[in-house]
Amino acid sequence: MYTAKIYVTYKPSIVDPQGEVIQAALQRMNYQGITSVTQGKYFEVNLAAPNVAAAKNEVADFTDALLINQNTETYRFELVSNDDEVQS
Amino acid sequence: MYTAKIYVTYKPSIVDPQGEVIQAALQRMNYQGITSVTQGKYFEVNLAAPNVAAAKNEVADFTDALLINQNTETYRFELVSNDDEVQS
Repeated sequence: MYTAKIYVTYKPSIVDPQGEVIQAALQRMNYQGITSVTQGKYFEVNLAAPNVAAAKNEVADFTDALLINQNTETYRFELVSNDDEVQS
Repeated sequence: MYTAKIYVTYKPSIVDPQGEVIQAALQRMNYQGITSVTQGKYFEVNLAAPNVAAAKNEVADFTDALLINQNTETYRFELVSNDDEVQS
């Protein structure tokens, strides 16, 4: 059994309005020194797979197919097997 | 300069409807072996701070104040300093 930790963010060329709104709010709340904020999505998916390679393929496959907007978003993921070696 | 990578997820006791919808969709798309999906938020915040401790305090402070719903969400974060030692 594996746990995939998937981090989805906007592509660098894409404006992140939500991030800008949060940054402005933090500055109004007097949090100094904040130079940028980006907000993305975070998924944790538990899946059974015969081996690490198969797990990685499936995660990449369903992330491209369903979890991201390929025009505006990019992602990275970590795969943790149940005996806790991190395979990134 | 530091980069805080903040991962926000629902507390274990909270139902995650979005995660359940995604899991059902993945199963309809024939992705086998997926046993659970949770969706959360992911923030990357660049901030200047005099030292790691000050940076950690500020991140915890503004995350509690603005980025999470304290009743339903929990978070963890990593702090990366510009010379790339990860301080978690």
